[in-house]
Amino acid sequence: MSEFFDNVGKIKYEGENSTNPFAFRFYNEDQVVLGKTMKEHLRFAACYWHNFCWPGSDVFGGGTFDRPWIQPTGDQLALAEQKAKVAFEFFEKLTVPYFCFHDTDVAPEGASLKETIANVNHIADIFEKEMDRTGVELLWGTANLFSNPRFCAGAATNPNADLFAYAAAQVKNAMDVTNRLGGHNYVLWGGREGYDTLLNTNLKQEGEQFARFLKMVVEYKHKIGFNGTLLIEPKPQEPTKHQYDYDTATVYGFLAEHGLEKEIQVNIEANHATLAGHSFHHEVAVACSKGIMGSIDANRGDMQNGWDTDQFPNDVPECSLVMYEILKAGGFKTGGLNFDTKIRRQSVERDDLFHGHIGGMDTMARALLNAAAMIEDGSIEKFKTDRYATWNNDLGKSIMDGKQSLESLSEYALGNDIDPKAVSGRQELLENIVNRFV
Amino acid sequence: MSEFFDNVGKIKYEGENSTNPFAFRFYNEDQVVLGKTMKEHLRFAACYWHNFCWPGSDVFGGGTFDRPWIQPTGDQLALAEQKAKVAFEFFEKLTVPYFCFHDTDVAPEGASLKETIANVNHIADIFEKEMDRTGVELLWGTANLFSNPRFCAGAATNPNADLFAYAAAQVKNAMDVTNRLGGHNYVLWGGREGYDTLLNTNLKQEGEQFARFLKMVVEYKHKIGFNGTLLIEPKPQEPTKHQYDYDTATVYGFLAEHGLEKEIQVNIEANHATLAGHSFHHEVAVACSKGIMGSIDANRGDMQNGWDTDQFPNDVPECSLVMYEILKAGGFKTGGLNFDTKIRRQSVERDDLFHGHIGGMDTMARALLNAAAMIEDGSIEKFKTDRYATWNNDLGKSIMDGKQSLESLSEYALGNDIDPKAVSGRQELLENIVNRFV
Amino acid sequence: MSEFFDNVGKIKYEGENSTNPFAFRFYNEDQVVLGKTMKEHLRFAACYWHNFCWPGSDVFGGGTFDRPWIQPTGDQLALAEQKAKVAFEFFEKLTVPYFCFHDTDVAPEGASLKETIANVNHIADIFEKEMDRTGVELLWGTANLFSNPRFCAGAATNPNADLFAYAAAQVKNAMDVTNRLGGHNYVLWGGREGYDTLLNTNLKQEGEQFARFLKMVVEYKHKIGFNGTLLIEPKPQEPTKHQYDYDTATVYGFLAEHGLEKEIQVNIEANHATLAGHSFHHEVAVACSKGIMGSIDANRGDMQNGWDTDQFPNDVPECSLVMYEILKAGGFKTGGLNFDTKIRRQSVERDDLFHGHIGGMDTMARALLNAAAMIEDGSIEKFKTDRYATWNNDLGKSIMDGKQSLESLSEYALGNDIDPKAVSGRQELLENIVNRFV
Amino acid sequence: MSEFFDNVGKIKYEGENSTNPFAFRFYNEDQVVLGKTMKEHLRFAACYWHNFCWPGSDVFGGGTFDRPWIQPTGDQLALAEQKAKVAFEFFEKLTVPYFCFHDTDVAPEGASLKETIANVNHIADIFEKEMDRTGVELLWGTANLFSNPRFCAGAATNPNADLFAYAAAQVKNAMDVTNRLGGHNYVLWGGREGYDTLLNTNLKQEGEQFARFLKMVVEYKHKIGFNGTLLIEPKPQEPTKHQYDYDTATVYGFLAEHGLEKEIQVNIEANHATLAGHSFHHEVAVACSKGIMGSIDANRGDMQNGWDTDQFPNDVPECSLVMYEILKAGGFKTGGLNFDTKIRRQSVERDDLFHGHIGGMDTMARALLNAAAMIEDGSIEKFKTDRYATWNNDLGKSIMDGKQSLESLSEYALGNDIDPKAVSGRQELLENIVNRFV
Repeated sequence: MSEFFDNVGKIKYEGENSTNPFAFRFYNEDQVVLGKTMKEHLRFAACYWHNFCWPGSDVFGGGTFDRPWIQPTGDQLALAEQKAKVAFEFFEKLTVPYFCFHDTDVAPEGASLKETIANVNHIADIFEKEMDRTGVELLWGTANLFSNPRFCAGAATNPNADLFAYAAAQVKNAMDVTNRLGGHNYVLWGGREGYDTLLNTNLKQEGEQFARFLKMVVEYKHKIGFNGTLLIEPKPQEPTKHQYDYDTATVYGFLAEHGLEKEIQVNIEANHATLAGHSFHHEVAVACSKGIMGSIDANRGDMQNGWDTDQFPNDVPECSLVMYEILKAGGFKTGGLNFDTKIRRQSVERDDLFHGHIGGMDTMARALLNAAAMIEDGSIEKFKTDRYATWNNDLGKSIMDGKQSLESLSEYALGNDIDPKAVSGRQELLENIVNRFV
Repeated sequence: MSEFFDNVGKIKYEGENSTNPFAFRFYNEDQVVLGKTMKEHLRFAACYWHNFCWPGSDVFGGGTFDRPWIQPTGDQLALAEQKAKVAFEFFEKLTVPYFCFHDTDVAPEGASLKETIANVNHIADIFEKEMDRTGVELLWGTANLFSNPRFCAGAATNPNADLFAYAAAQVKNAMDVTNRLGGHNYVLWGGREGYDTLLNTNLKQEGEQFARFLKMVVEYKHKIGFNGTLLIEPKPQEPTKHQYDYDTATVYGFLAEHGLEKEIQVNIEANHATLAGHSFHHEVAVACSKGIMGSIDANRGDMQNGWDTDQFPNDVPECSLVMYEILKAGGFKTGGLNFDTKIRRQSVERDDLFHGHIGGMDTMARALLNAAAMIEDGSIEKFKTDRYATWNNDLGKSIMDGKQSLESLSEYALGNDIDPKAVSGRQELLENIVNRFV
Repeated sequence: MSEFFDNVGKIKYEGENSTNPFAFRFYNEDQVVLGKTMKEHLRFAACYWHNFCWPGSDVFGGGTFDRPWIQPTGDQLALAEQKAKVAFEFFEKLTVPYFCFHDTDVAPEGASLKETIANVNHIADIFEKEMDRTGVELLWGTANLFSNPRFCAGAATNPNADLFAYAAAQVKNAMDVTNRLGGHNYVLWGGREGYDTLLNTNLKQEGEQFARFLKMVVEYKHKIGFNGTLLIEPKPQEPTKHQYDYDTATVYGFLAEHGLEKEIQVNIEANHATLAGHSFHHEVAVACSKGIMGSIDANRGDMQNGWDTDQFPNDVPECSLVMYEILKAGGFKTGGLNFDTKIRRQSVERDDLFHGHIGGMDTMARALLNAAAMIEDGSIEKFKTDRYATWNNDLGKSIMDGKQSLESLSEYALGNDIDPKAVSGRQELLENIVNRFV
Repeated sequence: MSEFFDNVGKIKYEGENSTNPFAFRFYNEDQVVLGKTMKEHLRFAACYWHNFCWPGSDVFGGGTFDRPWIQPTGDQLALAEQKAKVAFEFFEKLTVPYFCFHDTDVAPEGASLKETIANVNHIADIFEKEMDRTGVELLWGTANLFSNPRFCAGAATNPNADLFAYAAAQVKNAMDVTNRLGGHNYVLWGGREGYDTLLNTNLKQEGEQFARFLKMVVEYKHKIGFNGTLLIEPKPQEPTKHQYDYDTATVYGFLAEHGLEKEIQVNIEANHATLAGHSFHHEVAVACSKGIMGSIDANRGDMQNGWDTDQFPNDVPECSLVMYEILKAGGFKTGGLNFDTKIRRQSVERDDLFHGHIGGMDTMARALLNAAAMIEDGSIEKFKTDRYATWNNDLGKSIMDGKQSLESLSEYALGNDIDPKAVSGRQELLENIVNRFV
């Protein structure tokens, strides 16, 4: 088979002044930043689904893209093999070190679950060879428990126990495949785990089912010796009216309630953050503060549109603050930056896939450089440390050590006639400092 | 002192066909519904703040209302006494069995914390007499930890440990006063417990401070033998950019994380639900499913406006579903329906306060009647029970009892070649059934 | 061919107390309300697209519905004939007097435009017979200028002049077909007339193209003697980031700018109103105040979801206010209430289509009864008339007659030392009055 | 009187590498960009109201700022004189060439309208001297028709004709004062021109009143020979539920309807754009495309909060696109960039006012430099021109010249069997190009 992207070669770093649209201006994979290469810091992944399984359709119109392996009829497994070839051509030319997939992205569903599993494993064999050939690794795998009509009322939270069993079988296989491909993480996105109407929904029952499912996943991970991290991807709604993994705080609370907060982390998506009414920065900061920051789906939404637009990240200032939080929290461990991104439906040329990813990778690379500079400068952290200084004095420590009560503090306040005053939060000054770096 | 609302007498029930704007058409306090009187079910409260402390100002304009006790100068304690008289005249004429207040609503802040506390207690003495005279009880008390400039960076989550101590002293007194007035609940609304910018905020530190504060409140409740319920009121934002008690799921998660989920419940406000991206029904259903449904701030927001409009509830269908959840969960225990509501700034006549509350009480009374009818009919619950029937069979039970694993379920699914199909969720049919009752 | 909905007969009115899910409780087509029958007032239409062309797919999953005429391969024209049969079975059983369609809903696109036009006309022949047989009429027809990939950058506003010509040809045919079927209106919904990014968009150019297109449509209407009304359907976004026909005020302004405000009216969709940040009531009230209220797409959105959910209307209070505006403006002329509505993806039973429509028709019928009662009562209109009474006095008239200037009014104000005071807007009282009727 | 901002001197340009928080890094007023100085391009103004009249209060709390001239009692005119001194100290140190004010910002309201007018004129005398002394000019003046309780139901759209007259008198005086101070524009912001509920509102009547008012303003402008531009400032809501000047498209439509589109332009505020569901870029692009781009209120909102946060602009990429549109449209004529911005309530230090403005000015200066570079590069405009090239060919021209009809185009399409295909919109590529400049 000849090359699919025949007008595009391997993307190279050419520096900030390059005007070559097929070159990186900031992403220089071997450049060392704060002691690690950019490649090690950013851990970029390209996704299988939007790039190779989506024809450019939307709710109001059909596919606009040139994806010859998407056909309503014909030998679906052969088409899937063709798709795998093109995908690896793309990963290699783009120089992303990782990719991500759902089981049903890569292989056609069969007439039975058994056949579906066989199909997935057939393609996994091809992946093994391609990964070996190219050095591309698997950032994470996952099971698609939302596209097939059978999942329309949820998977783990389905009212039908048989459906729960079906989903369990599918997840088991996806975990097995992820494990044998050396995946660094395994992701759970509960696209249908939520409700369309409360009128037919038992929230308590569904919550318990979901906790039970997660525990089985944790048990199985340990059983098979999977070294990767388990990740939940929060999203507030769409396709459901309300999704249970609403946002990072909700997911953390659920994990803590069920004793799973050491076993499962989050895969935060920028566009899911904004759909939930939060900034991308907020979701990452919350995850870091709770110790469950696992991985990132690096995209952006449209602040004027209320659905998942999954656009490529291009806002350097915002991404700089996100990378700043991640660096402060020690950087990615098993996670990375996966582009869960879609080119626009009008981007009908094959090479538009490259433009989107090159822009996204440069945006994140520039964000990394900015964040590193902010850390080296240190002004913002110093301001923050000074602001909370009283919590290191006697009173502050005794409060946090549990040695004070409402009564003892009342005595202190009244006895000393304290009258604490507002201190400037210096938001404008801090924003100006950030703008020195972004 | 003569009557303030001199053109309004005691509001009476006159039945559905009444066109008297100063009569109830549905709220008939002694009418028995599902074994309890309406008064016992609904437990209506009027609030002190919006009704008696707010002059009708907004961000773009000054007060429009006729509230003679609001004066920039003069004897503030005497004015507070006048306000208390008018408030109880209002409660009595409206026939609400309960009221609610913040400490600083009822008494002026003094030159020192000590003086402030004395002022609050002085008015509490008057309240005791008025409560005794009228039979009106205290649904809940609370401390205002957000209006004074000292709280501009939070109370429990303030960067300054002295401010934490000051807040503790104020809460101690508010709890003492609530206790001596026989309050049925004590509420914590963290209006400034959040952040304006992440650039100056240590989320982890503030989270730990907040947990410590809540634990001290729980300890003090038990120490003084307060029989009421502790309640947190979720709100996502406003006045802060992001408030920590974002919504019920977030609050429950935080409580569970810190082992407080048996000690603290939620006071859900309709308008806070919608600001958080949820329906009022959702927030109540989540709280009921988690067993932390405490009390309600019954108001409504404007779905086209992104701030807290605190309008009176007037949507009977929506409130019927809320009352349905509450009845199914056993009804209010210590909680009730507090009107955290504001008449519009153009509603400049004294008696507009009555029109707002009469409409709100009739809306909720009608909602109660509708909810009771839905419960007596039973169709919706039956549909729901049938929908989850498989969870009572062998497979369902073994899953929930922890006897299954991904592997055993995979064996079951593959061994039986199961192929579960979608079943109609019947949302339209269920909505039609609801419309038979609302 | 046997019946498709074989468990459903003709839907009948059984009165408010009926619990038969296949009966109307309020829609009694021959019942006279304010001098016209319900059928004449409400002019219900069912739509072709969501009911018969949509398989129950969404962005995250495939079709869940049982629609045997939707096949990727096979004789598409024969399948379209089958679909037409089922559609008329549905309209007849539902007793809706009207239906609506896009050209591409009813017939497959051919290998050329010529073939497509022939296909549409072939099905139109069948429609003529079915309409004759059943008495069902065409409320409106329209051309689909958004689903085919060729329209991905717009139709009238496309950067390619050839595409404009193609769209013109398609609209001409859709108008011809609408005209020969006796359609009462012709609708233009500019689903792709907008932009995805301003970076590639010439707003001025596209605005002029759009005006030119509309003028050609108006000219052609008069040329062929089409008696129906031309309607634009406002929508703010989705599928585009920003759509030019944003809302009623925007459309009216555009029409006025181009002298088309007497030629074109609006078809208001409830869900498009809320996506634009308005209430359904607002959009209808604006259209009535401008004299361009044409027709209604009666559905509802989900206030927590930012996309077009197209649910069936079930909010009687809101729809009552909408019907109140419409009745005050004289009722529908050529327009009506078209259900541009989708059953939920989980509503997989054939008869769920009936539940949705029966609920929607009963909701609107009840709204009509409530609105009529409000009009007969007259309190709200009287309040409004009294509120503006000063505009009928000397000063008010002289202002509106253009006899006053800033100077003359300044002299009046200073000379008389006027000091106008706020008067109560009585919002709460008015809301209570409305609740007497809904 | 000594200096109020005693720790701040005149702000100077120190270049990009400066870390001095009281210096500009990009705003170099005499630097020439595309043939004009930065000062001439940007035309910065500071506003009177947020900086000097607002104490740092919000809906939930009192003032936090140190503004000694804000006192509930005392000689209000003397306090206003003190405020004027501080304001000009601020303008001078900040080196903004312009300022803006409402009549009631600068002078206290008197016991009568006559006295209020005298107060405003008294302060205007002081302004004349200060403007003369400092060289600071008036970008625009306006009348506050929204804060006083008398305006709670609107000014021009008030149900009371006397109120209309009162507003006219106030506007006349504000125009007179603006004119004598050499103001470059006069602004109308209809903060209360809208509705709280449709139940008491006659939309048609209020629309006609509003048009009449605007015409009187236009007539008066010409009568007194005011050379400045009249500007309407769109805002969708807040304080009203719905404001008539919703957004630029709505305002333009209203102007066109009443033949005022050559007389009145828009003053676009970034935060009002986002409240209306648009991007800042969108609003500016629409105004430019319609030829009514007048002036800018340069601030930003918080995309997660649904109210007017009026924060300082700090998003360089977004502002670069805005400046790009403005430069392409020929730059500001009489308008400029007014900071309608508030420091945060926690920014309690006097000098926080400087940090906010310095950051805002640097953001806009950097945006200007980026926009100029994009224009000099030309790639984006070239792409756009090429994209619409067919509109310059025969077919395109004949369509726009009105020489084609639906029929003639249908003949062309069918006769030539045209089949226009999608062309890539290149959104990702264009976004990457923009990121080369921002």
